[in-house]
Amino acid sequence: MEITKKKTTIVLFSGDYDKAMAAFIIANGAAAYDHEVTIFFTFWGLNTLRKDEVVKTNKGIIEKAFGWMMPRGANKLGLSKMQFAGMGPQMIKHVIKKHNALTLPQLIELAQEQDIKMVACTMTMDLLGLQEEELLDGLEYGGVAAYLGDASEGTVNLFI
Amino acid sequence: MEITKKKTTIVLFSGDYDKAMAAFIIANGAAAYDHEVTIFFTFWGLNTLRKDEVVKTNKGIIEKAFGWMMPRGANKLGLSKMQFAGMGPQMIKHVIKKHNALTLPQLIELAQEQDIKMVACTMTMDLLGLQEEELLDGLEYGGVAAYLGDASEGTVNLFI
Amino acid sequence: MEITKKKTTIVLFSGDYDKAMAAFIIANGAAAYDHEVTIFFTFWGLNTLRKDEVVKTNKGIIEKAFGWMMPRGANKLGLSKMQFAGMGPQMIKHVIKKHNALTLPQLIELAQEQDIKMVACTMTMDLLGLQEEELLDGLEYGGVAAYLGDASEGTVNLFI
Repeated sequence: MEITKKKTTIVLFSGDYDKAMAAFIIANGAAAYDHEVTIFFTFWGLNTLRKDEVVKTNKGIIEKAFGWMMPRGANKLGLSKMQFAGMGPQMIKHVIKKHNALTLPQLIELAQEQDIKMVACTMTMDLLGLQEEELLDGLEYGGVAAYLGDASEGTVNLFI
Repeated sequence: MEITKKKTTIVLFSGDYDKAMAAFIIANGAAAYDHEVTIFFTFWGLNTLRKDEVVKTNKGIIEKAFGWMMPRGANKLGLSKMQFAGMGPQMIKHVIKKHNALTLPQLIELAQEQDIKMVACTMTMDLLGLQEEELLDGLEYGGVAAYLGDASEGTVNLFI
Repeated sequence: MEITKKKTTIVLFSGDYDKAMAAFIIANGAAAYDHEVTIFFTFWGLNTLRKDEVVKTNKGIIEKAFGWMMPRGANKLGLSKMQFAGMGPQMIKHVIKKHNALTLPQLIELAQEQDIKMVACTMTMDLLGLQEEELLDGLEYGGVAAYLGDASEGTVNLFI
């Protein structure tokens, strides 16, 4: 007798530190509850997955411009509110440390340990000129079909 | 024997080009997978549906002000990130064209061809002073009850 | 014979007047349709629940700073679009009154009358330094586990 696990899917569209935190807290919580969890990274959400280094790539001018303007990885993201020229993110990181909560990079690590499926949207990677070698290891790559395949079996489906 | 189709509903609250793109890509994908799809347009999401022309209407001053300040239609929307005084949207449109992806107006056309149900929220139309003749043809009109009727049968329900 | 009610859950992450309005309109609508409704307030969404007064608390400096910078309660929230240095919210409140729609504080009152479960996220209360006596009465307090308990039984689950 097979027991089907509940499924949770999250589209992470946003590239804000606070929204990405919320996404990963829900995702990690659902995985701890034994849900099968997929996070689908699209548009600015892909910046969460960028490596914190300059990776040599062969790109057009617009793609290069996007590459330079967008934050390189989870630790560089801004806030959706109270950014205050970078002071807001510092304040949040300070209180996270003070309360022994997990930072965004730690939440991402935990997600990988919990085998949360992380799918990078290939269509928006093309548009923003992001290449696989610029993103974290261990990702899957897919389009809207991959997302809908999971979401149409999902109990909790969120767009963040 | 009747087979019930899966249902997908999206509330499009946002009036950003990139978020509206994401909404229409998911909606069109779900329709291609034979889901019954409803997009419910509320608040700034209604601007996606505005005609690209000035329509003569009889409005109060505040409603006129909203009318002038809000973008007229899908092609005029800004980005949720990296707006850069209008340069961001131009860059996105450039890479969409380069990669033979669909622009937002094309995604809306495709949604109409696929018989995606597009419902404009009458309550926020009242608040923002938008009138039926200012919006695209072929829409339905309804309130939160219409939305909940569909969403409570939905498998994938998103708020964008 | 027990009939199980449908469940609707909303994560209110945003602290914008317009997004909070949308959340409460959907929540109140679902409650009127006899759904069991939970709103889970996290991050800036907690500001919706702040009392409109200065409450004496014993806080660290960063928590005090967050306390002063964040809006005190539903009536002080800004808009997600067209804020225009405070003019936008005034315009919205003007048209709400004109069309006999409900303001955000009235929508919150209605939610309480309809026994909508309102849960404040304890983890982000810690991070932002918000204390129970600063928030409205009649709330429940919980973390991501409380949210997932409800959401994994939910028919309509939204992140706003």
